[in-house]
Amino acid sequence: MTSTTCFFSPPSPFILKRTTFSSPRSNFTVIKCSNLSSEPYPIYTSVKSFAPATVANLGPGFDFLGCAVDGIGDTVSISVDPNVHPGQISITHISGDNNNKLSKNPIYNCAGIAAIEVMKMLSIRSVGLSLQLHKGLPLGSGLGSSAASAAAAAVAVNEIFGGKLGFEELVTASLKSEEKVSGYHADNVAPAIMGGFVLIQSYEPLTLINLKFPGDKDLFFVLVTPEFEAPTKKMRAALPTEIGMPHHVWNCSQAGALVASVLQGDVECLGKALSSDKIVEPRRAPLIPGMEAVKRAALQAGAFGCTISGAGPTVVAVIDDEAKGKIIGQHMVEAFLKDGNLKASAKVRQLDRIGARLISSSKD
Amino acid sequence: MTSTTCFFSPPSPFILKRTTFSSPRSNFTVIKCSNLSSEPYPIYTSVKSFAPATVANLGPGFDFLGCAVDGIGDTVSISVDPNVHPGQISITHISGDNNNKLSKNPIYNCAGIAAIEVMKMLSIRSVGLSLQLHKGLPLGSGLGSSAASAAAAAVAVNEIFGGKLGFEELVTASLKSEEKVSGYHADNVAPAIMGGFVLIQSYEPLTLINLKFPGDKDLFFVLVTPEFEAPTKKMRAALPTEIGMPHHVWNCSQAGALVASVLQGDVECLGKALSSDKIVEPRRAPLIPGMEAVKRAALQAGAFGCTISGAGPTVVAVIDDEAKGKIIGQHMVEAFLKDGNLKASAKVRQLDRIGARLISSSKD
Repeated sequence: MTSTTCFFSPPSPFILKRTTFSSPRSNFTVIKCSNLSSEPYPIYTSVKSFAPATVANLGPGFDFLGCAVDGIGDTVSISVDPNVHPGQISITHISGDNNNKLSKNPIYNCAGIAAIEVMKMLSIRSVGLSLQLHKGLPLGSGLGSSAASAAAAAVAVNEIFGGKLGFEELVTASLKSEEKVSGYHADNVAPAIMGGFVLIQSYEPLTLINLKFPGDKDLFFVLVTPEFEAPTKKMRAALPTEIGMPHHVWNCSQAGALVASVLQGDVECLGKALSSDKIVEPRRAPLIPGMEAVKRAALQAGAFGCTISGAGPTVVAVIDDEAKGKIIGQHMVEAFLKDGNLKASAKVRQLDRIGARLISSSKD
Repeated sequence: MTSTTCFFSPPSPFILKRTTFSSPRSNFTVIKCSNLSSEPYPIYTSVKSFAPATVANLGPGFDFLGCAVDGIGDTVSISVDPNVHPGQISITHISGDNNNKLSKNPIYNCAGIAAIEVMKMLSIRSVGLSLQLHKGLPLGSGLGSSAASAAAAAVAVNEIFGGKLGFEELVTASLKSEEKVSGYHADNVAPAIMGGFVLIQSYEPLTLINLKFPGDKDLFFVLVTPEFEAPTKKMRAALPTEIGMPHHVWNCSQAGALVASVLQGDVECLGKALSSDKIVEPRRAPLIPGMEAVKRAALQAGAFGCTISGAGPTVVAVIDDEAKGKIIGQHMVEAFLKDGNLKASAKVRQLDRIGARLISSSKD
């Protein structure tokens, strides 16, 4: 094996017990572990998984709300590999990382870290795996690139061993990856894994609320990404440490309105709430050249709302019609060029309601 | 006329135009005014209305969320009175105000102020009204006593003239009353008028979101009121002026969870969120003797959550079963006596889904 493999000490052997919660806020399948040995065997020889891009923060939903968007994301292939030491994982190939920034050492790679965590949770000791990562998302764009890699890997490893872990375990495993890359926040990994909108109510214990956007309503995201780097650390350093009570109450009420509008399928209200952040966006927007003009352009072109996606630099607007979304995107791209002197590209995407999933599997 | 009447200058004559919004978040009937004369005539000679008690704040819903509780509230009777100068209102009787604290001068009385505002909105110039108020709610208890008086009066005046105003106008009229008594906050008057849970998204323009709690779910409030005065001003002075970012994010996420749990009918999650405020309750609880012990007692007795109702001193716990609610109430009363040296009384009430309404009318 090469230096790209990673050995880990498996935890005490445990047995997995599947429990389905009937809580109306979620239908998680949660695995409870007890100290008995039951290492699962792979049910496939190889699998391929996909995890979507995600938009975190959503204005007043800062640090606790995110959603998945369809059609763009990362892909992970996992194979049972007799050349890899049992209990280890090897990253054999990474594509789509145009700047070669990603490490093939699993403990320094988002997909690798999440894959290792899932193997630990499943107590895998007898099987070695190789992993191939295809980046469909640009790094540091504010679209949950690291979360998509982690989510795709977590789901792939889980599925190759029979899908014994539930959403919460997969989010927990992916959080280990996020912790090393951008901080212990689940607002990208949770929607990347679960799809739709997810609210993170608490971390101890991890409590996730799946906010179901009505199936009969249309919601489109206009995602405009400028050629500009907005490092998460710099964007986080821009945040205020103290918030005045009036702004706190305002943002709390907008967060409540945002949640209500998602559950009630009111895209106009959703846009209004998403657009109304008085705490984070005002500090971060000036760090993205042209952002304020881009937001104005989006709203003038008919968007219901507009804010920074994640920590930026992607700007996200919402609308209920794809054709209108394309026009809004053009106006936003023009504003980035005119006011920010930045080239930008626009995409119009729907809400992804599924989250990370297997896209192929083989038993050969 | 006696000194208890109030004359006001009617605004420019206007015509009322009824518009029904089709927004999924509400079905408000909103009246738009233009400068043409169309004074409505009374369709009844007298009406009686009721407005329920309300629980505002609900922990992390501080200053923007409230709900109505059934079976307790204030009653207002309004009659066309030829002895009252046209365009004026006279408060002829107040009952249930055991300490005689309430003024019969309409401009200093919650019901009077709201009644005057509705008469202004309707441009009433030709009819005089007399008003009788029955207080079913104790003053300063944290159960929206002033809001109930205002809401009942606003609805009564509106109904006697044919119900031409919608929820938003009635809330706006009642807000004039709240402004004079306890501050410009709609988190009591909005649910008192509209029933159920109401989120106040903004004041300029007034934007209210009706959060529909599912009809097939049970929700009970255990309301425990100690014999103790907690003046709203003192309770407001206890609030922090600045809030650290972690607590802001925490309370925002709990506010989101609270809204989600209402719409999803998840009483357990609702209780957890309501109980989780890290900003307001920790400052106010020490000002209510025994409050912390009362909360512990409620949770130990099985309540899903517990916090201060409004600005207190009433403490509210939530549960999904009436019998359990009564037991929880007993434990809370005992804790108030033991740890706060305060006598207290407990009530178990359901969510009021209707809000202020006409309970009788006469054309005689």
